[in-house]
Parts: sequence; structure tokens; C-alpha cells
Amino acid sequence: MKIQKQIPVTAYKASGFIGKYQQLVRETVIPYQHSVLWDKAPDTEKSHVAANFINAGKALRGEDTADGFYGMVFQDSDAAKWLEAAAYSLAVHPDENLEKQADELIELIAAAQDKDGYLNTYFTVKDTEKRWTNLLEGHELYCSGHMIEAACAYYEATGKKTLLDVASRNAECIYNRFVVQDIKGWPGHPEIELALLKLYRLTGNEHFLILSKKFIDERGTDPTFYAHEAEKRDWTVWGCDPWDNDYRQSGKPVREQSEATGHAVRAVYLYTGMADLASETDDKELLEACRRLWNNIVQKKMYITGGIGSTVIGEAFTVDYDLPPDTAYSETCAAIGLLFFGGRMLENEINGEYGDVMELAFYNTVLAGMQLDGKRFFYVNPLEIDMGISGTACTHRHDLPVRPKWYACACCPPNVARLIGSIGAYAYGESADTSYCHLFAAGSVRFSNGMALECTTDYPYDMTVKYKVSGNGKLAVRIPAWSRSFAISVNGADFSQAPENGYVYIEVNGNADIKFVFDGTPSFVRASCKVPRLAGMTALTRGPLVYCFEGTDNGRVSELRIDRSSAPEVGEYDPNLLGGTVKLTAKAERITDCGGLYTSEPEQCTPCEAVAVPYYTWGNRGENEMRVWMNIC
Amino acid sequence: MKIQKQIPVTAYKASGFIGKYQQLVRETVIPYQHSVLWDKAPDTEKSHVAANFINAGKALRGEDTADGFYGMVFQDSDAAKWLEAAAYSLAVHPDENLEKQADELIELIAAAQDKDGYLNTYFTVKDTEKRWTNLLEGHELYCSGHMIEAACAYYEATGKKTLLDVASRNAECIYNRFVVQDIKGWPGHPEIELALLKLYRLTGNEHFLILSKKFIDERGTDPTFYAHEAEKRDWTVWGCDPWDNDYRQSGKPVREQSEATGHAVRAVYLYTGMADLASETDDKELLEACRRLWNNIVQKKMYITGGIGSTVIGEAFTVDYDLPPDTAYSETCAAIGLLFFGGRMLENEINGEYGDVMELAFYNTVLAGMQLDGKRFFYVNPLEIDMGISGTACTHRHDLPVRPKWYACACCPPNVARLIGSIGAYAYGESADTSYCHLFAAGSVRFSNGMALECTTDYPYDMTVKYKVSGNGKLAVRIPAWSRSFAISVNGADFSQAPENGYVYIEVNGNADIKFVFDGTPSFVRASCKVPRLAGMTALTRGPLVYCFEGTDNGRVSELRIDRSSAPEVGEYDPNLLGGTVKLTAKAERITDCGGLYTSEPEQCTPCEAVAVPYYTWGNRGENEMRVWMNIC
Repeated sequence: MKIQKQIPVTAYKASGFIGKYQQLVRETVIPYQHSVLWDKAPDTEKSHVAANFINAGKALRGEDTADGFYGMVFQDSDAAKWLEAAAYSLAVHPDENLEKQADELIELIAAAQDKDGYLNTYFTVKDTEKRWTNLLEGHELYCSGHMIEAACAYYEATGKKTLLDVASRNAECIYNRFVVQDIKGWPGHPEIELALLKLYRLTGNEHFLILSKKFIDERGTDPTFYAHEAEKRDWTVWGCDPWDNDYRQSGKPVREQSEATGHAVRAVYLYTGMADLASETDDKELLEACRRLWNNIVQKKMYITGGIGSTVIGEAFTVDYDLPPDTAYSETCAAIGLLFFGGRMLENEINGEYGDVMELAFYNTVLAGMQLDGKRFFYVNPLEIDMGISGTACTHRHDLPVRPKWYACACCPPNVARLIGSIGAYAYGESADTSYCHLFAAGSVRFSNGMALECTTDYPYDMTVKYKVSGNGKLAVRIPAWSRSFAISVNGADFSQAPENGYVYIEVNGNADIKFVFDGTPSFVRASCKVPRLAGMTALTRGPLVYCFEGTDNGRVSELRIDRSSAPEVGEYDPNLLGGTVKLTAKAERITDCGGLYTSEPEQCTPCEAVAVPYYTWGNRGENEMRVWMNIC
Repeated sequence: MKIQKQIPVTAYKASGFIGKYQQLVRETVIPYQHSVLWDKAPDTEKSHVAANFINAGKALRGEDTADGFYGMVFQDSDAAKWLEAAAYSLAVHPDENLEKQADELIELIAAAQDKDGYLNTYFTVKDTEKRWTNLLEGHELYCSGHMIEAACAYYEATGKKTLLDVASRNAECIYNRFVVQDIKGWPGHPEIELALLKLYRLTGNEHFLILSKKFIDERGTDPTFYAHEAEKRDWTVWGCDPWDNDYRQSGKPVREQSEATGHAVRAVYLYTGMADLASETDDKELLEACRRLWNNIVQKKMYITGGIGSTVIGEAFTVDYDLPPDTAYSETCAAIGLLFFGGRMLENEINGEYGDVMELAFYNTVLAGMQLDGKRFFYVNPLEIDMGISGTACTHRHDLPVRPKWYACACCPPNVARLIGSIGAYAYGESADTSYCHLFAAGSVRFSNGMALECTTDYPYDMTVKYKVSGNGKLAVRIPAWSRSFAISVNGADFSQAPENGYVYIEVNGNADIKFVFDGTPSFVRASCKVPRLAGMTALTRGPLVYCFEGTDNGRVSELRIDRSSAPEVGEYDPNLLGGTVKLTAKAERITDCGGLYTSEPEQCTPCEAVAVPYYTWGNRGENEMRVWMNIC
């Protein structure tokens, strides 16, 4: 049983920092991404997503498919993620034109669904004989998962059932194959597990719970599965090694897993589904596995920015404590998935650490994934940019100093859009008698337990968070671990309570004005000596924000050494700087004789100031150096 | 004209440190490698080198080739490098059994040569039709180059002409194709250029000078050359990209090149040939290109250990200042090639920097390539080993914490053997009136200008070098850049001279006892801030030796911060430690609360000592951590 559950996206209306981001998504990201789906965006790589659905419909009707299929094997998921983002926007901000665009796309999708419920343009256009023959790489279940998520979101936002029916028929088709016919198999790229649970909750159809559980339970029970599957076919998508089970989290049954391995996005999507299933079915063994995997990530494999998956080789986790800042992969989608995972863990147990990590991932890696104007995106979120090396050396080609426009593989931009649109569900939760504030998000919330609140805050820049609460029940608020002290007042009176697992609980009867003041003093953070690349260095944080040092403010950043003995100065909030931000200024020294390649001459240093800006704002002022981890003096 | 030239290998008899290494090569490495060539070494990967020659002979005689060809396309070069190493050993240490083994192998090689002089077992056994169709990857010219070097060495050592005749016929066959028939082409892997110049000097046959010059002059004149070659054939060895000209230093004519690019070994073998040709033909333009390429390497692309080629991706140079210690490639063979290059530059111009770099490469990377017992070898010479990451993470799989035995690609071990055997030619040089000491190598030398010397020294551990010189002429001795001061005495009397381009010159008439005392004070060395990975760190050196900190002596090395303000303590020479060495002990502090992944708690430190051993001795006491570059406090 879920001890508390996420609120529906429709229940939160954002203002403040989050509101501004939702507006950006609504006004810029969603329209732009729509034009991409229809290949109408100028100077942008061809997407062909809408055309693929049109052609799949034609193929099913026996018509000429003209220009056929184009794009990645998972190209359909771009449409689904855009629809999901559009749905979240419509849920709180009706827009006739957007709804018309969505309905139009949904019509194409419905027309591309086969009689038996099968839905995938790659296999429908290219070769229907190849359906279900390559779970390793074919991404059919992954695409279905995203379409199911979109369908749930669109139904919740608009009440329209067309896409929900498409998704349900598709899920029944999959249920028929894997449960009724009992064919062995699990997704090469997890995603459908978590989606089916949403669909189950929305429709009440137990097939979808059973199917999700089947994929999770069967996963990793047969290490030869993919290899045998590969033997039976004469084609591949990418030539993936079917024996590399760790890469797709199927080296052993999920309940026996303790190490986060392989492709980071797959991993956290799987763990999200596992955590959701654990609370849905009271599965303690599964929850225990989730805890182990969570701990392995956040204690040994996570960047300070909440980014995960440190290597470009397979976009994957490597080994414990291997967290290079300059060659980081730290995919935007993986940080999003980590946030999903944390949100589902909170439905199993209340623990402030989940929210701590979720806000770290959100305010740093997820937001860094998008340019401040919403027009360009990072997949890869390095913690260090070295001019002449990053983006250039063959080992650093993925670590770009500025965000590119749109990728052939366009997974991250629509993922950022749908997360920002649905962040309310992660910020707020509810049980019969308690309303939860996991993240600090300005705006209004209606809880289904009858409570409601209005949150006013300039978080993450101001650490005061005010709640005007109405109703009867408890308000549970996370006390972030970064805050060394905090003060609470209820209706103007001091309120004191030691946090329990990172939360304080305040009884509300009728109406209450509740104020939290957290500690906004910047902190110098160090990494464990077990992280060889970060030993002896420092990072600078304030609240949930990790800061970084850019060349624009500092000249050559590798010449700087930070003096941790004096407190950094906190600047005034500057609405005109980087979309509105607060600079930090630290005492430092600069090595002034950069000299030859190697020298034994003692170095010349001069005292100076080092200016830091939030990591999520980096790379918005042209190409320049950037460092999160700094040398110290 | 060569302003001075390398002495013949036969003219130097080693003692001291070099003598000990030559003995190790003679007694352990050469016999072991011989057993490998014949597939008689236990627990070692199959080499099949001798069998390939036997089978090539059979193929030419129309006999059944039994088990055919096995190994890399350049497998023949292992035989050549072993013969070259054996020759250098025989040159100064006659050994009937070894000479018999060499003669036996030479007979097989001679029998494997085709009527027209063609010599390559891969193409002779597998498919003679494919000869000369893949200069990009086929390595025929590379293998011929090594055989020519072996032939020259064996003739000089023994006076026996069989292999020299084989090599000359092979070179004439190549001359016929590329010069007489004027077919366009240059080696995908340079090596033959430098070898042909040796053969030219030994035989006086101008064809070989012309052929070497043709390969060097034509290289890079047509960027489409390899691509057109690839179009004409239906096979590849590795599927190399024929358009990646920079990888094989043929993006533009060599005289226009300024950047060391691509595969590091290929690069320095090419530059060695270029530098040799420049002095041989008084080619100032070519010398200028060599200077640019040398400077690019030693000012921007060289590890402090003299290692080059920082990435495993293609065993290649990357971009300027990209010198990661933990993911370093720094191939042993590339350091050997850099030493070759420096030696040939010294034949163009006297400059102490060449010798400085040569001894850096020799005493650090080249010697580190071999286990102290001569039985195991590193290809890859990382400057940092992190337990649990190095050799394990997919990004660090090439950086092994202990030396493996023998590789399928066995280029480095015999290369180390032949370099140690011929180091005298790099240590000493001669002109009509001057004898040169470029490196400090104990032993006796007979110069062809009539001078002779006996060098006594415990270098690289004792910085006193004594020369007992006889004859008439000048003795030119390099003053190493690492020595902050030095003292010279001639026949007991102080001698003072400011070095000219890094050398001092002492007139000798009859006999002289000359003593140099260099400064053996350890130095803390820092890298330029332009090297982002090394900014703010320190290395420790003494004389030509770079030191490193191993886990065996220090526990977790990443916990340590070195205090550069106090002088390191120089230990006593310990004959029982790591083959005889001197430890250095530096003041340091240790972070004692390694803690969680990230923390803002101030760290606890305790003063301690950090013990360093020479880099070349690392990894001889089992798996453990190692660092050259240390954090500072």
C-alpha cells in the first residue's frame, strides 16, 4: 500500500520559479517541439515523427508508404513525450490550439494501430514480420510505455479517451502475448513497467498490473534469453551484445540486484517501476532491492549535481566512485529518471533523502539540460569544460561547451518538458490525513484529502517558504539536509519539532499560516577520498543549487584555487542575470605564472575573487570554461 | 650533414645501471622472447611467429602450409625486433647458442622471401594477390622496416650477411615498385623510412636513400590516396577509416605539418625518419618541420614521464594539454619512438633539451614498461592507478595495475629489449673532433675519432659522473636541465664553463679525468594551468627520475596532500628494494574522515609522511594504488 501518493498533475498550479519554467515550456518548448515532430522547425534535423505515424497508417491500409520510416527505432516515443508534455500543460492551462494539435496527432496514432492493438511505426512501416523478434534492441515495449504515459496524462488533462483506448488496446495486445500466451521476455529498455502501473490505476484493469509485474519478476531470470533471441534472427539495430546483461539490468532477477549497472536511463526507469510495484503490491523484498539500488547510486555513483551514468560508453554507470567531472555523461534523462525513482520511493516510505536527491537532480542536472530560453538542450551534463579539450578531444567529444539545438536522438528535450509540466506530482503528495511537501514549489495545491495550500516562496534563491493551508489534517514538510538549521512558525508563533526521517509534521485544523526559514548560507562541499578524481577539491553550493565557475566571470578557471577558510559572499538577486539569479563570490588565489608544460619553479599567486553562478545556468553566455570542482588553497 | 652521429652499438660496453639492464635483457628477456616466437613459452598466448615463416617458405615452394598464418598482420615484426635485440646483445656479449638461434630464424626468413625480394608471411601464406593492395593497414612496409633494422644490427654485430642480403633484396623489391615503377604510396605505419637510411649508410646503396626520401616527400600529398586505395579492394584488416589522414600523419605533406597527430608510435617513427633524412641530406625545411613537431610534443603533449599518446582510442595523441593521468595510454613503444626522434634531432643540432627528453622517456616510461624481473610488460603506462577503477571501469580497462605477461600484439616487449641493447648509440655520439655524452651511461666507449672513455657512475641514483678520457679532441657533455647547479673538475681542478645549448665542451689532449657533480636535490614539479587535469597538483622528481606514491607504502594515496614547503628527505640507496633504489619521503597530511560521497563538514587532517619510489619501479609489489600527480596542502 502506498503510504502516500503523488498528487495528480491537475491538482497543482505553479507560480514563482516553477511557474516561470512551466510558462517557458508552454510558450517555447512545446510549440518548438511540435514543429520538430512535423519537420517544420527551421535549421533542425529531420524528425519525421508525424510522417512515420502517417506512413504506418498507410501501411496498415495497404497504401503506398511514400517516404517510409525515418529515424531511430524509438522515434515514436518523441510523439508520446510531446503529447505527455502537452497534456500536463493543458491540465493547468487550457489552450484550444494546442489541444487541436494534440488531437490531430492522436488521430494519426490511432490510425497507425494494427487490428490486434500492436502499435509501433518502425515495425509497421518497415517489416511487420520482425515484430517482437528483438526485445534486446527493438524498443517496442519502450515506445508503448511512453504512449501509455501520454494517454494517461492526456485523459487526466482533457477527459478525452481516444488515446487512452489506443494505449489500453496496445497494452492488452502485449498482455495477450506475454501473459496469456506466456511468452518469455522483458524489455531491453525498461519504461513500460512504470507506465502500465499508471494505466492500471487509471483504468482499474488488473491485466496491466499483472503484465507490469510479469516483466519485473521475469527480468534477469535467464541470462541466455537475449542471446537465444539473437540466434533466431538475422538482423540487428545496433549490433548490441546480447550477453551483456548487466547493461540492461538483467544479469540476475531484480530482487537479487544490489548494484546499479549499465545504461543509466534504463536502470532508473526500471527501478521506478520496481518501486511503484513494491508500494502497489506491498512487496517488501522488492522494496529492499530498490533501497539497495538507490543507496548504491546516491552513495557511490551520483554526481554532486544529481547526475548519474558517468561514461559516454553506452551512456552508462561504470564502477563505484568513478565520477570524472570533465568526461561526465550525466544524461539529462537519467537525472529525470532518478527523480522518478525518488518519487516512487517516497510512496513506500517517508525519508528526506529522497527529496534531497530529487531536488538536486531537478535544480541542477535537469534544468541545466535546457538553455534558459528553452531553445537548446544538453543531453550530456559535464561538470567541467576545458577549452580546446571539451567537445574536441576524442575522449571529450560528447562534453559540449554549448547546448546544441535538436538531436537525431531527441529523448532529452521532450523529457525535460514533461517533467517540468508534472513536477507538482513530485513536489506534493497526499494520504488520507496528511499532505506532503517533498519539494518547495510555489503555487496552489488541492489535495484529495480535502486540504489545500498556497505556497509562496522565491526558492531556490530565497530560503523562506510560506504555506497558507486550509482543511483538517497534517502538513508534512521535508527539512532539506543541506539546511544546517531552520525555523518554523505557525500562525506567527514559533514552532519547534525535531524532524522525523527528514520531515516535520504540523497539525492543521481549519486554516494556518506556516512559515519555514531554511539556512541559505553557502557551503563548501568536498567529495569522499574514495572518489579519486575529486579528492582534494571543493564545490560550492547554496540551498539545493550547486554552483560553478565560468570563464566569462573568472578568466582561466584552472588557474584559480579557492580559499575555503572564508565565507563566500552571497550576491543580491539579479533579475537580469541569467534569467534571474544570485552570484556567489569566494576568496581565491590565482596562479599568475602559468608557464611551460612542467616546471619546478615555485608558483606565483595573487589573491583574487572567484565568482560562481548556479550550475543550471552555465553555458548560456557562449563558449567558455566551466568548473564545478575547484582546486583549493 | 650530421653535425655528429650516433656511435655504433658495438662501440659501447655497459656497466652500472645500464649494464644491469642489458644483463637482464640478455639473460631473461631475449631467451623468453625466443621461446615465445617458437610457441614454447608456458602459459603464454600463441605467437606462431617462427611457424609463419616456415609456412611462408612452404607456400613459396608450393608445399602444404599446414596451420597457415596466425597472428596480427604485423606478426613478422616480432621476429625482426627479437633479432635486432639479439644482435645488440651479441655485439657486446658473444653467445654461441644465441647466435645459433638467430641464424636458425634467419634461415627461415630467407626461405620465406619470394623470388622478387618480397618478404611478408601474412600475404605470402594467406593470399599473394593481396600484396601491396592495402598500404593503409597491411603493414608490409612496416614489417620490412623492422627486418631491415634487424639485418643492419645483425651484420654489425656478427659480420654475417645472410639477413642483410635478404633485407637489401626486399628493399630493392620495394624500390622497384615505388621508385622505378613510380607507383604512388606511403606506409600506413611509418618505420621503413628510418630503416632504409640505416641500410643506405651500411651498404652505400643510394636506392635506399632515394626510396626513404620518396616515402617521406610523397606522404600526405594526396588526401584521397588511402580512400582510392580502399575503393579498389574488397577486404580490410581492421576496417580503418581511409579518410582519417591525421591518424597516420598524412593530412598534408610532412614539411607543412606542425601538430603531432594520430597514432603516437607512427608519429614518432615518422619524425625519426624525417630527422634522420634532414641531417643526411641537409634539408633545412624538413628540419624545421621536425622542430615544430618536436616542440608540439614536448611543450604540449608529453607526460612528465616522457610518455606520449594520451588516449587509448587509437593509441593516439589527442589535443594540446590533454594529459589525463588515470586514463593515460602512454604506450611504451611511443616513448621509445620519442627517444629515437630525440637521438636523430641531435644529429641535426646540439641542444640539451633532446637529451633531457630522451632520458625522461628512458628512465621513466620505457623502463616502467618492463617488470623488474624482465618477465612481464606494460604497453600502457598510466600515471595513476585507482583501485576498483583502473583496469575495471570501461573507460580505464587499458590501465592495468600490474604488468601482464605477453600480448597477442607483442610490439612493446621486444622494443624495450632492442632499445636497452642499443641505448649506447643514444647515449654517445661523435664527430671528427668531438665526442658527445648525451646521456649518462656507465661503461666504456671507443669513438671512431680516436678518443675513448670510461664512464663511472651510479646514475640515476648518484649524480656524480666520472669520465676517464683518452685521445685528442673535445668531450661534450650535456648538462641536464633538472640540475639547478653543477660542478666540473678536470684532473682534479675546478673547471668552469657556461653551457652552450645545454652542453659543456672540454678539450682533451692525451688523458683526462673529468668529473661532473649534478644536483640531486628532489624537486616538486607542477604542470601548466593549461593542463586542466594537473592544475593545482604536484609531482616529485629527482634527477631524471619521476617518483610516484604507491598504496603499498602509503595506504590510500588519494587521502594524501603533499606539503611542498619542506624539502623531501632522500633515503639511502637500498640494494634490496625494488631492484635497488632510493626512496623519497615528503611531508604530507592525510584526510582522516573520508566520509560519505559528499559532505560540507570540514575535513579532519593529520600530518604524516608520504613515501615515493621511482615511477619505473611501480607495480612490482602487487596490485595497489599509485599516483604521480598528488594533491597539495
